[in-house]
Amino acid sequence: MATMPTGFATPDEAPPMTVPRIDPFHAVGLSTLAHQMAAEGRDIVHMEFGQPSTGAPKAAIAEAHRILDSDGMGYWESTPLKARIARHYLETYGATVLPEQIWLTCGASPAFVLALNSAFTPGARIALARPGYVAYRNTLRALYMEPVEIPCGPAERFQLSAAAIAALDPPPDGIILASPANPTGTILSDAQMQAIVIVCRDRGIRIVSDEIYHGLSYVGPVRSILQDEPEALVVNSFSKYFSMAGWRLGWLVAPPSLIEAVRTRVGNMFLTPPSLSQHAGLIAFDCREELEGHVRMYRHNRDLLLERLPELGIERIAPPDGAFYIYADIGHLTNDSLAFCARLLADTGVATAPGLDFDPVEGNRFMRFSFAVSTDRLEEALRRMVPWFARAGKAAD
Amino acid sequence: MATMPTGFATPDEAPPMTVPRIDPFHAVGLSTLAHQMAAEGRDIVHMEFGQPSTGAPKAAIAEAHRILDSDGMGYWESTPLKARIARHYLETYGATVLPEQIWLTCGASPAFVLALNSAFTPGARIALARPGYVAYRNTLRALYMEPVEIPCGPAERFQLSAAAIAALDPPPDGIILASPANPTGTILSDAQMQAIVIVCRDRGIRIVSDEIYHGLSYVGPVRSILQDEPEALVVNSFSKYFSMAGWRLGWLVAPPSLIEAVRTRVGNMFLTPPSLSQHAGLIAFDCREELEGHVRMYRHNRDLLLERLPELGIERIAPPDGAFYIYADIGHLTNDSLAFCARLLADTGVATAPGLDFDPVEGNRFMRFSFAVSTDRLEEALRRMVPWFARAGKAAD
Repeated sequence: MATMPTGFATPDEAPPMTVPRIDPFHAVGLSTLAHQMAAEGRDIVHMEFGQPSTGAPKAAIAEAHRILDSDGMGYWESTPLKARIARHYLETYGATVLPEQIWLTCGASPAFVLALNSAFTPGARIALARPGYVAYRNTLRALYMEPVEIPCGPAERFQLSAAAIAALDPPPDGIILASPANPTGTILSDAQMQAIVIVCRDRGIRIVSDEIYHGLSYVGPVRSILQDEPEALVVNSFSKYFSMAGWRLGWLVAPPSLIEAVRTRVGNMFLTPPSLSQHAGLIAFDCREELEGHVRMYRHNRDLLLERLPELGIERIAPPDGAFYIYADIGHLTNDSLAFCARLLADTGVATAPGLDFDPVEGNRFMRFSFAVSTDRLEEALRRMVPWFARAGKAAD
Repeated sequence: MATMPTGFATPDEAPPMTVPRIDPFHAVGLSTLAHQMAAEGRDIVHMEFGQPSTGAPKAAIAEAHRILDSDGMGYWESTPLKARIARHYLETYGATVLPEQIWLTCGASPAFVLALNSAFTPGARIALARPGYVAYRNTLRALYMEPVEIPCGPAERFQLSAAAIAALDPPPDGIILASPANPTGTILSDAQMQAIVIVCRDRGIRIVSDEIYHGLSYVGPVRSILQDEPEALVVNSFSKYFSMAGWRLGWLVAPPSLIEAVRTRVGNMFLTPPSLSQHAGLIAFDCREELEGHVRMYRHNRDLLLERLPELGIERIAPPDGAFYIYADIGHLTNDSLAFCARLLADTGVATAPGLDFDPVEGNRFMRFSFAVSTDRLEEALRRMVPWFARAGKAAD
């Protein structure tokens, strides 16, 4: 380790503002451990991340082979892909989005940074559901914005509501919606979403909607915020439904009023996403049959978990309307979900995510199972977990 | 265009801080125009961007084909690539960098955002050379930091100097170094760089070094800041020397004291770079023969431009020690470089970059030629430009 050279600011000389400490994503630590165990010969079932075990659609891979051999792949922004995404909003949601409102990014994460940096200033207060995706809270903090976490329990189906937003005093500058949500998978009904839009308009609150799990619903169509609020910002990606996580391709839809702010930030802070991924992503839009096959597998996995979780002594879960997660209350087994998930991994080789990642207050008594694995692997995980949870239950008694 | 719904903040209700307006990268606008012209059948020579016309190394492409067929490509961070980059610092510069100091990113642009956000707070004053890469200034502004532009002319070889940094009162919080520089290609000597390190240590100034053009030198070895200052942050990428711009792969080297700040930001704000690019990038490190062939072509192009630019009436240029740019004073021809470059494009189909992108004060009398094109295309550009510049010279008389 290099030593700090003389002359650098010591705490006494530090400026009044310091770089904020951001929480780690604990599931990343567990995953790293899981990969080390795998390298040492252990058989690991990876249920810690929302990462499809299926690869990209076959036709998208074939297109990638073709482009690799025929294209120099410089900086490139795919006009056809933007047009295709715009068509997707019209066909799927009946929402009109112009291609120039669409910005292609290296996944949803930078799209989210881009959205926040384009629409809000430091000090902005942004409301969001707790539990929620760890990166919302942490990215807000890294950008010097203030996450206003609204506790959302089983009674609210772990989602923001119009009433909760109406009750915030003063009103926040923005809210982050996620439907289907991570870690719970719950989906807002049309009426709930419309009520949220009305209260946000009324109070001058800008909406950022994370729609990364669209396409993964087990309860019917999911509403896009753009059906009700053309001034919202929408983040999406090819990482979930399209099964292309490592291709790093996402997009942001920005309202016309923010096009200039987003355009200048993309060109300076991010540039273009991978050329190959843009070519392949365009083809992926036409691979519905293969992709719907994945959704059928997720539905099967979900049903299997719903059926078998009681054997683990798990009875209280969020209703998994969509995405590929089950967020489970394990308060009867532990008050330290991180240690609990670490023990589960060490003992059984099943990697999961501790609730602490999604809820800094109550997450100690929750854990998240991702069922984006093959059914075989899920069955293997259940075989290992049933006796382990039985022992954990006895120890906790 | 959607209309703004009622209820949104009007200027009267706006919070005291507003989202800052960021300048566009004008070369992007010219490039878009150039591509439209190409789509209409015009033959365009693209000298507006620093983008290799060569593709990725053949072995890297072969590896990409292999991975496409054998890997599901989820979120992934290549441990072997980090180790390879660490070895590169030892072998090339004699600098010790631990793999855990290296962060893989989707190109140099997000690496730069990551560096600034991890090391500095809003309000930080960051000194940089003017002229300089447009994104430095604009990204600083987008992150609410203050660019302190130091005018650097021919006498300073367009580079920051220890004396200029010593003269800043109060001292800035950080500086951005770029050697070889964009748009000028000038390289700092070892003595100049060491003098800068001494004054920065003395005054408590953190150094961010953009080393994206390393490997592209026509005057001998280029010094990495890490040879002199292990507390510096270094941004680099596969887009220039490795000829893999559209693969979107870059890296940040952070000092041990910033590892935690960078780690938490990567995991929340960016996640991983493209899996395929990481696999291919590892192979690209061993394709030196092919890559050095590109450097020989750039050297030939540079010599050709140095020989022929006088025929265009261009006599005052920055010494192009490295990179693949020539930054030329065209003050005898125009005081509006953006309009000048637009006319050149419209009349001849040769796309270039206006100095305005790199220098908001004096850039109106400069333009940048990128010679990262094939020698054939460069010769074609010269054939078209010689008579055009002759007419422009007569018109300006």
